[in-house]
Amino acid sequence: MAATPLTTDLYLLTMMAGYFEQGRHERTTASFEAFVRKLPQQRNYLVAAGLASLVAYLEQLRFSPDEIEWLRSHPVLSRLPAAFFEYLRQFRFTGDVDAVPEGTPVFAQEPIVRVTAPIAQAQLIETAVLSFVNFQTSIASKTSRIVTAAAGRPVMEFGARRAHGLEAALFAARSAYLAGASSTSFVEAGREFGIPLSGTMAHSWVMSAVSESQAFADYMRVFGPESVLLLDTYDTLAAARLVVESGLVPAGVRLDSGGLATLSFQVREILDRGGLSRTKILVSGDLDEFSIAGLLADGAPIDGFGVGTRLVTSEDAPALGGVYKLVEIVEGGSRRFVAKRSTGKPTWPGCKQVWREMRDGRAVRDIVSLATEHRPEAVPLLHGIMRNGQRVEGAISSLEASRQWCATRLAELPVSTLNIGTTADYPVDISAALSTEIESATAP
Amino acid sequence: MAATPLTTDLYLLTMMAGYFEQGRHERTTASFEAFVRKLPQQRNYLVAAGLASLVAYLEQLRFSPDEIEWLRSHPVLSRLPAAFFEYLRQFRFTGDVDAVPEGTPVFAQEPIVRVTAPIAQAQLIETAVLSFVNFQTSIASKTSRIVTAAAGRPVMEFGARRAHGLEAALFAARSAYLAGASSTSFVEAGREFGIPLSGTMAHSWVMSAVSESQAFADYMRVFGPESVLLLDTYDTLAAARLVVESGLVPAGVRLDSGGLATLSFQVREILDRGGLSRTKILVSGDLDEFSIAGLLADGAPIDGFGVGTRLVTSEDAPALGGVYKLVEIVEGGSRRFVAKRSTGKPTWPGCKQVWREMRDGRAVRDIVSLATEHRPEAVPLLHGIMRNGQRVEGAISSLEASRQWCATRLAELPVSTLNIGTTADYPVDISAALSTEIESATAP
Repeated sequence: MAATPLTTDLYLLTMMAGYFEQGRHERTTASFEAFVRKLPQQRNYLVAAGLASLVAYLEQLRFSPDEIEWLRSHPVLSRLPAAFFEYLRQFRFTGDVDAVPEGTPVFAQEPIVRVTAPIAQAQLIETAVLSFVNFQTSIASKTSRIVTAAAGRPVMEFGARRAHGLEAALFAARSAYLAGASSTSFVEAGREFGIPLSGTMAHSWVMSAVSESQAFADYMRVFGPESVLLLDTYDTLAAARLVVESGLVPAGVRLDSGGLATLSFQVREILDRGGLSRTKILVSGDLDEFSIAGLLADGAPIDGFGVGTRLVTSEDAPALGGVYKLVEIVEGGSRRFVAKRSTGKPTWPGCKQVWREMRDGRAVRDIVSLATEHRPEAVPLLHGIMRNGQRVEGAISSLEASRQWCATRLAELPVSTLNIGTTADYPVDISAALSTEIESATAP
Repeated sequence: MAATPLTTDLYLLTMMAGYFEQGRHERTTASFEAFVRKLPQQRNYLVAAGLASLVAYLEQLRFSPDEIEWLRSHPVLSRLPAAFFEYLRQFRFTGDVDAVPEGTPVFAQEPIVRVTAPIAQAQLIETAVLSFVNFQTSIASKTSRIVTAAAGRPVMEFGARRAHGLEAALFAARSAYLAGASSTSFVEAGREFGIPLSGTMAHSWVMSAVSESQAFADYMRVFGPESVLLLDTYDTLAAARLVVESGLVPAGVRLDSGGLATLSFQVREILDRGGLSRTKILVSGDLDEFSIAGLLADGAPIDGFGVGTRLVTSEDAPALGGVYKLVEIVEGGSRRFVAKRSTGKPTWPGCKQVWREMRDGRAVRDIVSLATEHRPEAVPLLHGIMRNGQRVEGAISSLEASRQWCATRLAELPVSTLNIGTTADYPVDISAALSTEIESATAP
């Protein structure tokens, strides 16, 4: 949807008005960090995503005259002074953003995005920051596991119909491609992001035809040798035999129901005997990393996977609990670190950096430090993305470059971290200086 | 996002081209039905939603010249004849839609939406139909359970930051309100759909202030007696005492961490002793229908619930597996019913109607029949929504009216069906005529 500052929670707007009334809205600088307190179950790492959307949103952020009129007439805000609405009229995001590049693997408690801006600005965008980062990171993280399980075979993202609306389908396709999916079926994602498109045929194509053989022949007549024929509308093995008997030479066939391992062996045999040894077998139907790993462990002769529902909704962890927390305030020339001490939900004070220690090309541990620290022996994960409301040149890579970045960074992780079936705690330590700040912030 | 026909899966476009090449694209009429094969676990019923979005989408459906150029240049489609792209240029949705009104409780195997249109049109929109219906129905269904658990206390939807993007947040807010939530925190949903807005304050408001008491006092100075103060930034009970000692009289306080039942009793006592017996206690923090029911079973003095993550993602059933299946074809003057026989995924042939039998104001069972049958003793659930591409006047109710419709229809269901803790199979039978068709379609 179009970028509008109304994609925020009411309390962020009312607090913004509160800061305005205090005269702090533009004079007080606040730093907020977005991070995940705890990895979801069945996630040893996350793949950061959503930054490109966030930057595009922040660059365009304006209140339209209509929006201001609407706010002004809303019961909750109507008691605010006219000057506040005048302020909204010239509102722009003029702050700084530091973040982990899209595609970078990250862990719990590591800041993914940091915003430093006048407090009214930094506060207003909380919902958008979290929405972009939480959702897109969820999907990229889930996809990464599925791609790992597919062990080099293409993972085609087929999930638009099960995504949380059409915009979610669009960004799920992008996040999936970022994390290693080979293509999407969602045409708009091909157009918007240049993602390779793939698709086969639906059961309705077969059902609408006078016969299955007619359906196959007609399809190949139009789409030629690249066609992928869907075999399970009536009977998968009969359809495989039909393909052979018809003399068709499709690029692939798709199996979408039944016991996929057994069927893939049987179909492979029918195709091979019929001289179609180059016709690939693709499978689909409620797949995830575990079912894919199972099929491959059985040695099933499968050449590619169409994955939908469980990928585009990150079904086993559909909500990433990322939070956006105030960590530092600069006010009247003095800087102070802040933290909350809520039961079970404390936060760490101060702007932070994350350092990844490498040994022989492998990541061995991360260290979360204060942003002012420097660790020459390690690689910093957060980079300057926006300064004074403008994107830093070259800070946002192309989707292709981010996809490559993701693959490279993932390959550096310990093998145990990438394992889909076991829990591995990649070490994330806290620097001594940050540790001291945490202690002092949490002391009663 | 803006309505574009590119929010479709590639295979729907290629099949559309295939129908075009066969000369059937506009001459063959197809009927597709969207339905759910099986209810998700922990759902005794679904609340239908997404229809208003779908109708708005279909009314605007056009290929722009840019989109056509892009398709034409795409490797997969570039081999198609120019005439196909000419056809796209004048493409409109001219079909009929019958559907269950938003807010109606429905069950497995009951058509929620039926589309009857020239086959190319009916096929192209598959992704959009399912996207709207699957997502919005998921959220409405989950919310309905949460609202039931809250037993008359307001359920405030607070989930935008965890929804699957900003558009998902918008439609989650709408679906939640449809199903009985009292308000949303997402400002854009207030503007777009007129949903009441609610919100409190964030921890950052308290953390950014010199002291908690200053934070509370400043907030109330700006927002007056309607303010809701957040108590758990540092210590919930200390904050409650602070409110009393400061002489503030907020409309409410919010607890967001810790043991909510115990804290609510303690806070209630502090407030009551301090003369703030009219100050309400709201709670939030990873709530769902079970935790809400648990709090109320404990007698916790809670006046309202802020529910986010688990509502807006329907966390325990984040993907509704709705499908859109071809059921009937009219071609060359003859009509035929179609069905697929895929293992574990067969479909029922023919256009259908769902009838709800009522006894003493209670729904006692549903009967799925052929659309041509008539059952004067029962209430038909599917209504004419669009005819020849135009919405039927009065067919789409206002959100307020749909919300009322939902509440009324839910109240008619058996009590056991509404129970959140037990599985209840509301009876859904098949008419004799439909049964005969199913048998003949599934015979080998």
